[in-house]
Amino acid sequence: MAGTDTTRPNITGGPAIVLVRPQLGENIGTAARAMANFGLSELRIVDPRDGWPSEGARKAASGANWVIDGARVFASTQEAIADLSLVLATTARQRDMRKQVLGPQAAADVLHAREGAGAHCGILFGGERAGLDNEDISLADAILTYPVNPAFASLNLAQAVLIMAYEWQRAAGTAGTRETFAELPDLAPKAELLGFFEHLETELDRGGFLKPPEKAPVMVRNLRNIFHRAALTSQDLRSLRGVIVALTGRAFRRNGAP
Amino acid sequence: MAGTDTTRPNITGGPAIVLVRPQLGENIGTAARAMANFGLSELRIVDPRDGWPSEGARKAASGANWVIDGARVFASTQEAIADLSLVLATTARQRDMRKQVLGPQAAADVLHAREGAGAHCGILFGGERAGLDNEDISLADAILTYPVNPAFASLNLAQAVLIMAYEWQRAAGTAGTRETFAELPDLAPKAELLGFFEHLETELDRGGFLKPPEKAPVMVRNLRNIFHRAALTSQDLRSLRGVIVALTGRAFRRNGAP
Repeated sequence: MAGTDTTRPNITGGPAIVLVRPQLGENIGTAARAMANFGLSELRIVDPRDGWPSEGARKAASGANWVIDGARVFASTQEAIADLSLVLATTARQRDMRKQVLGPQAAADVLHAREGAGAHCGILFGGERAGLDNEDISLADAILTYPVNPAFASLNLAQAVLIMAYEWQRAAGTAGTRETFAELPDLAPKAELLGFFEHLETELDRGGFLKPPEKAPVMVRNLRNIFHRAALTSQDLRSLRGVIVALTGRAFRRNGAP
Repeated sequence: MAGTDTTRPNITGGPAIVLVRPQLGENIGTAARAMANFGLSELRIVDPRDGWPSEGARKAASGANWVIDGARVFASTQEAIADLSLVLATTARQRDMRKQVLGPQAAADVLHAREGAGAHCGILFGGERAGLDNEDISLADAILTYPVNPAFASLNLAQAVLIMAYEWQRAAGTAGTRETFAELPDLAPKAELLGFFEHLETELDRGGFLKPPEKAPVMVRNLRNIFHRAALTSQDLRSLRGVIVALTGRAFRRNGAP
């Protein structure tokens, strides 16, 4: 989807994304892009198979260069998480470990609360082939698992990162949706709406629509409900009155008016 | 992430994913994989640039073959949504249209409630380059937008699909806790709505309303938006077509029909 607005501030911060023994640079890059889409910026990489820096990663990041440039490489998961206060381990597999298990939404709420209290957090993601090993998972405070289709559970790395970045931003509630579209339109004054109803119903009566007479009140009420639901503005009402004039071929004249 | 368990049932169903003028087969395939990961299975494709079927799509779907095999191709967005009752249009851009705007979570809740009530729904996603055009969006009941980082808003197609598939499965998992079902009217199938639009617009054209011609598309779009907002049932549409007949004094005849 298009829509990047480079005049608006770049959202950064949030928990660290820790990729543990990733293989392809390209997958690191698409993960970085997913982070940037939802305002995460801190990437840590444990023992990347194909080395670092990676041109493939930079290319696949599609412009999320600040994530790639800021990435730090560690030799082990232990070193990568040494300064973090809360660590979640992402896995789709059932593990024989007694740890708390969180879904993405609950995890994002926990991360948000912790980060908001000044405790830096991280999320571990395993490599493409084997995921996290038991050693990595044992370092985490809780397991994060996704509500995937059990018969088709394999998410690629960028997709797994994307969902947590998305949930982080949802929990943070700072971006896009709310502020951009929040303004409510100015609904038309009721007098204008009633003027439209009078116009419509007068012409419907002339056109023989409101018959038999005993059913007319219900028919009128149903039509009015349709237009009430549409939450009309003054401009909408001018358009709709123009529609009536075009369909009838005449300007509005009240019943009995000369 | 690994973890697929082929002994467990495959989750299918849910709203249709409608890819409008996608370009690369590979992106259709990764979108299909994202659908399968969270249990969506119905893929519709409007006018794919590189044709269909696509070996690139099948390969990129990484085993989500039931989604690829079941995909249906349509020549236009109108045809692709004709049997759907509720359609959301995904866009990151602000549009000059008065339509309801939903975030992914609210959208998934609405979709879940509607599908649960037996009304089939769909989500439109635009092609890689330009997204949905205004014509596509005018066909939708509401706009779906993501809380992206405004400075880095460009999601690829599979990522955009993934987030809604994920939210769909989340909503499915929490269903039963909400009670949104009861008050929802049965919305008319889109084919009936489009039939009403054709009737109205044909008569407006005869009545000289759609002038000057260069303004006609915007006038049509604004009128359609008014009626989209009204969330019309089949009964509402019969009433409104009766209104047009009463106002014009003639039954509907297509342009050029005898």
